[in-house]
Amino acid sequence: MGGLAGSDSTQRARLGGPVIVLVRPQLGVNIGAAARAMLNGGLSELRLVRPREPWPNPRALAAASGADAVVEAARLYQTLAEAIADLRLVYATTARPRDIVKPVFTPRAAVAAMRAFASDGRGCGVVFGPERTGLDNEEVGLADAVLSVPLNPAYASLNLGQAVMLFAYEWFQAGIEGVPRRRFDRRKPAASKAELAALLAHLEQELDDAGFFLPVAKRPLMVRNLRNVFTRADLTTQEVRTLHGVVTSLAGRPWRRP
Amino acid sequence: MGGLAGSDSTQRARLGGPVIVLVRPQLGVNIGAAARAMLNGGLSELRLVRPREPWPNPRALAAASGADAVVEAARLYQTLAEAIADLRLVYATTARPRDIVKPVFTPRAAVAAMRAFASDGRGCGVVFGPERTGLDNEEVGLADAVLSVPLNPAYASLNLGQAVMLFAYEWFQAGIEGVPRRRFDRRKPAASKAELAALLAHLEQELDDAGFFLPVAKRPLMVRNLRNVFTRADLTTQEVRTLHGVVTSLAGRPWRRP
Repeated sequence: MGGLAGSDSTQRARLGGPVIVLVRPQLGVNIGAAARAMLNGGLSELRLVRPREPWPNPRALAAASGADAVVEAARLYQTLAEAIADLRLVYATTARPRDIVKPVFTPRAAVAAMRAFASDGRGCGVVFGPERTGLDNEEVGLADAVLSVPLNPAYASLNLGQAVMLFAYEWFQAGIEGVPRRRFDRRKPAASKAELAALLAHLEQELDDAGFFLPVAKRPLMVRNLRNVFTRADLTTQEVRTLHGVVTSLAGRPWRRP
Repeated sequence: MGGLAGSDSTQRARLGGPVIVLVRPQLGVNIGAAARAMLNGGLSELRLVRPREPWPNPRALAAASGADAVVEAARLYQTLAEAIADLRLVYATTARPRDIVKPVFTPRAAVAAMRAFASDGRGCGVVFGPERTGLDNEEVGLADAVLSVPLNPAYASLNLGQAVMLFAYEWFQAGIEGVPRRRFDRRKPAASKAELAALLAHLEQELDDAGFFLPVAKRPLMVRNLRNVFTRADLTTQEVRTLHGVVTSLAGRPWRRP
């Protein structure tokens, strides 16, 4: 878990609006374009999960013209789970919402919820997939909800920089329109992604030992379905603790972290 | 006045939303990017005032990938006055509204007015200046109003394609407002309340037998908290079935309905 962001990056997330996470970006020039688009909308915290080209990447810096600081401060992660571990509300972008049961929001609707979260100092993020393929289903499964940009159905393709631009633009517009809507109970903090991941690890370990995931070929799908259920529930830290207790109680033994 | 658009193009303007006018664009690649952005937002009528490179421009076509038809149908004009002669409502884009006494609108505010105009069959247009210099004061003077995109004042520079993109995006959003934000996959039916109640009964019975709800005075609150979690998850029938399996597997025995 070397990628688990510490208090420093949490602090930046608090100050700078949502974190932008690029998963397996193929071209440095697109990372630079994303950095420019972020800065246009007043965003500054960029995280990269296994970029294809070596990092640091001079092409990304060249393409960032004027937004170099965003590229230079970008953090690298090995997995998406690590990149979002400290965040409380995460959206995954997809061109076409696939057969995953998750709420789908437009960027405009999402920024309202994110403004409310961010104003309480809770980290939010938006995850963008590789240029050609987009996020895979498992990666989408780690997010709370899906972000989809309504565009001409006959021509909806956006490049990475444009997709980041439209989100950053909406983020900025929401800031100048004023009052964020508050729909979350401040006294009950949302679980972090790391807390949620630990709960799922506990549950999956006990289910593995109980022989639940059979036939083994279906395990990935079954795991994803379970993750979707608990991700969608918007759990609080207290609820995650309760569910650990539920699993421990049903399994009849305490959990030993792997 | 050879460029004065005839009834044919007026007709297209009526059908396809606002006309996009690029004044003295420097690079074909940017014309192509503008065409793509237009099509993303459902716009199709492009007019060019004295592009710097010869026309037709193979670089514009190459950059338009998929939006070739927009580039091919573009019309050329010698002056901005000719390019907007048939339009009724024209916005000039500027990065910084200069010392011109004209109303200034955001793209979001402008598209509302333009939708009303367009629905009456009256032509509208948005004028973008050259990449480096923008529109000159005389050109801005020909427009009814100024369009200015609110962006991070510390980094507000947009390239031509992005500027067109943000306008076309706003145009498209104004056309689809009222579409529900939250969509679920129709093929996966939501669990009935009876199915959910049976799942909770199963879980609570096993937790009772495992001695989870202690001290007993706290049982009602603990039960309510668990119910909240699973109610909030918007479970499907299939997911309820899976969760029955999870509880059965962890408890190590099949459920017998009371």
